[in-house]
Amino acid sequence: MTQMPAEAIVQFDCHGTAVGKMRNELDIHMVQPSEEHFQMASDEGPFHGGDATAPPPLALFVGALTGCIMTQIRAFAKRLGVTLNDLQVDTRVQWNWKAVGRVYETAPRSFEIDVTIDSPDSIEKVLELVETAKKGCFLEQTLGVKNTIHHRIKTADGWLDA
Amino acid sequence: MTQMPAEAIVQFDCHGTAVGKMRNELDIHMVQPSEEHFQMASDEGPFHGGDATAPPPLALFVGALTGCIMTQIRAFAKRLGVTLNDLQVDTRVQWNWKAVGRVYETAPRSFEIDVTIDSPDSIEKVLELVETAKKGCFLEQTLGVKNTIHHRIKTADGWLDA
Repeated sequence: MTQMPAEAIVQFDCHGTAVGKMRNELDIHMVQPSEEHFQMASDEGPFHGGDATAPPPLALFVGALTGCIMTQIRAFAKRLGVTLNDLQVDTRVQWNWKAVGRVYETAPRSFEIDVTIDSPDSIEKVLELVETAKKGCFLEQTLGVKNTIHHRIKTADGWLDA
Repeated sequence: MTQMPAEAIVQFDCHGTAVGKMRNELDIHMVQPSEEHFQMASDEGPFHGGDATAPPPLALFVGALTGCIMTQIRAFAKRLGVTLNDLQVDTRVQWNWKAVGRVYETAPRSFEIDVTIDSPDSIEKVLELVETAKKGCFLEQTLGVKNTIHHRIKTADGWLDA
């Protein structure tokens, strides 16, 4: 993002449409700082009532988190003068799942990210790179704070806060 | 997840390998409660030094969040006896981006989810469905708390906490 001003807003929108048994068509737009369009889908396996035509949402999420920190490490390596011969990241995420009456409730349990960097530079420089990448990683910073999600439901009389 | 016990752990792992300019190959395993395997990739557009061969991590993330709440709404509609003729969800996520010296820092700014449900059932039942789905949605519950992410960096002498 070398062309960006000192401060900016980054925005991604997604329009999801339910199709099939559990498949969701996901139409995604990067709105700011530039306009880009991506199409993907989620589905579930047979044990969750789906047809396994696409990855489940949690697979997209773990891929997003891993890709985000890797992107930041690569982008910042150039800026901090750290040579990367190779970069591999292993992410493990666990959630708690609990049956509650007819439905269930969930909660995050643990996040672990193992970073393997092949670099001729000192371990101090590599550590500084990872530390800096954490602060630049949109998803790490998002997960590290308590976020409020605003919901609205469409009714015949307009939008209702939910 | 009708075959699950009263409590369970859900785990997804991802092995990411950096290839090309900014592309990451993402090899994802659902580890618990069942074993499944998914392959995807992330990349960046030219303005961020990539070749745009795959969606960026934030597109995967917004798709994951949208797919997760939609999956929960559909799964719980059956359990709560709410008829869904159609379901569409519009998600908007904004982040703040700020240049800091040679690098930058990021922070979440806003999360908005608009739910459009076509149902012959009462608005009260639809509202109860969405309320219940929020509690079952792994990613909404994850974003709603401050999470700690544990990092390790591989060194010649073993793993170093970062």
